[in-house]
Amino acid sequence: MKKIQEFVRLVEHTLARQDFDNDPQELYEPISYILALGGKRLRPALTLAACELFDGDSNEALMPALGIEIFHNFSLVHDDIMDQSEKRRGKPTIHHRWGVNRAILSGDAMLVKAYEYVTKVDSSILPKVLKSFNRTALAICEGQQLDVNFESGTNVKEGDYLEMVRLKTAVLLGCAMQLGALSAKVSSRKADSLYDFGVYAGMAFQVQDDLLDAYGDPDKFGKKVGGDIIQEKNTLLMIYAREENEEKLQALLDAKYDDAEKVEHFRSFFVQCGARKRAEAKRDELLNKALSSLAAAEGNNQEVKSELAEFATWLAHRDR
Amino acid sequence: MKKIQEFVRLVEHTLARQDFDNDPQELYEPISYILALGGKRLRPALTLAACELFDGDSNEALMPALGIEIFHNFSLVHDDIMDQSEKRRGKPTIHHRWGVNRAILSGDAMLVKAYEYVTKVDSSILPKVLKSFNRTALAICEGQQLDVNFESGTNVKEGDYLEMVRLKTAVLLGCAMQLGALSAKVSSRKADSLYDFGVYAGMAFQVQDDLLDAYGDPDKFGKKVGGDIIQEKNTLLMIYAREENEEKLQALLDAKYDDAEKVEHFRSFFVQCGARKRAEAKRDELLNKALSSLAAAEGNNQEVKSELAEFATWLAHRDR
Repeated sequence: MKKIQEFVRLVEHTLARQDFDNDPQELYEPISYILALGGKRLRPALTLAACELFDGDSNEALMPALGIEIFHNFSLVHDDIMDQSEKRRGKPTIHHRWGVNRAILSGDAMLVKAYEYVTKVDSSILPKVLKSFNRTALAICEGQQLDVNFESGTNVKEGDYLEMVRLKTAVLLGCAMQLGALSAKVSSRKADSLYDFGVYAGMAFQVQDDLLDAYGDPDKFGKKVGGDIIQEKNTLLMIYAREENEEKLQALLDAKYDDAEKVEHFRSFFVQCGARKRAEAKRDELLNKALSSLAAAEGNNQEVKSELAEFATWLAHRDR
Repeated sequence: MKKIQEFVRLVEHTLARQDFDNDPQELYEPISYILALGGKRLRPALTLAACELFDGDSNEALMPALGIEIFHNFSLVHDDIMDQSEKRRGKPTIHHRWGVNRAILSGDAMLVKAYEYVTKVDSSILPKVLKSFNRTALAICEGQQLDVNFESGTNVKEGDYLEMVRLKTAVLLGCAMQLGALSAKVSSRKADSLYDFGVYAGMAFQVQDDLLDAYGDPDKFGKKVGGDIIQEKNTLLMIYAREENEEKLQALLDAKYDDAEKVEHFRSFFVQCGARKRAEAKRDELLNKALSSLAAAEGNNQEVKSELAEFATWLAHRDR
């Protein structure tokens, strides 16, 4: 994915040249810190790719692309407070290093900065850009709340889960694509198709994440395999298992296993009851919807189009 | 101030008809709650007044006016977490009632909602509206951090304090006025003058707040008189007193008084060393700058113009 890698480098290069070191430094230092921690910069790279898909000038999409990345990092800062996470990308989280108050306030400033960057666009597309970003930002707040609501509880259905994933994770990929398309001044219809591409690809990514947690290769998958099982999280596997055989699931949940035994028993059960197959089928259905949406967007640049298809397929089938 | 009262009622009426009750209710319920708690709705009323000052249609300014009010309430929600305040307008704060996580997330959603409302304007003024609101929202984050920085420390100078007050409190009044002026499609120069009017009036308001804390009539002033003195807060009175007679101030700070004695000694000392006179002079200087800026804005509507002048004078000289 030569083009996408090139966009990642352009994003890195441009982001490193932005100056977030203003006064008071207590407010801005955490912003520079989190933005320098890295991350794959995939979302902003997708914004540039979407613009070039329609033969737009990717420089026109650069500021909204950075806005998407700043927004993503804002949401990590506040989520890390709520989840009481001490590490992010191997380094201390902002609230762990500087306290909750500074993490709240620096996060707020990042959300404002995200708007500042996202709206650095031609005034002819500004209303559409704002509409897309506003509804996305609000959806992500809703998704975070749903994620909290669904953490426990035996009443979470497939549809609830997919809606949560759509809101919490996928719409930001959709918005990233849409802002790139709008920067190329394409019709709303094409931009909306590309939005759908991002959303479906993001959902497929998240379902694959659930699968990797249970069946990933520990040497390749970064996180500890089986973490969701040990925490009894409502993943798609767990939801399907409950639908298929609630009694057996409850028996497994009630059993007194150590962690390794528990993971092994659930992995087998998910296969045996058909939950794994259903999750894989759902993932591939979402990937196919993504690819159809990409086709419907009718982008001109064939090289970028095939890279985006390749990228979505990788998101859905990655092993790490 | 008949007109301004009319605008307050229009804001109340319109705000009450907005529907914030979406799903998930865990996210939206706190938003409806805090917006229904009341408050004087002065900022949005000022937006409408600014619009009508230039013979604009105040309906054009209604959505940005609500955006300003929603933003103001967002900042209260997050500030209350940081200050660990349990009450707001006599009722439990959001984090006290529903926990810190829901207060962070509902606050984030309110900031997004504020952008949504503020940007419901004619596309011809959208870039200017966004520029004003972005810089104001960021300034308020900076002001909140400066306020934390200045709470203690003996090195806070008059200029630092006034800059903190400008950022934390005054720019939102400035922005409220500016958005109203922009909604009436006036020149940037006139809108900027009205921004200055709001900023200076807001700063005069805050200096008067410091004076009322020390010299207000306990029967009229809502808060307990002398609270800042007991907490040894860096108010403008304290800063001037340090400039005038640091030795005497230090002796008072070191003395073992009970609260009532302490308040009495500081009140006398502020008068005796000239700090009170200087604070009153600074307040009146700020009020005069506000009134000059109002004149420079060259609004057509004489009734609204004189009400705005009356309002600024009231802010600076109110006894409650």
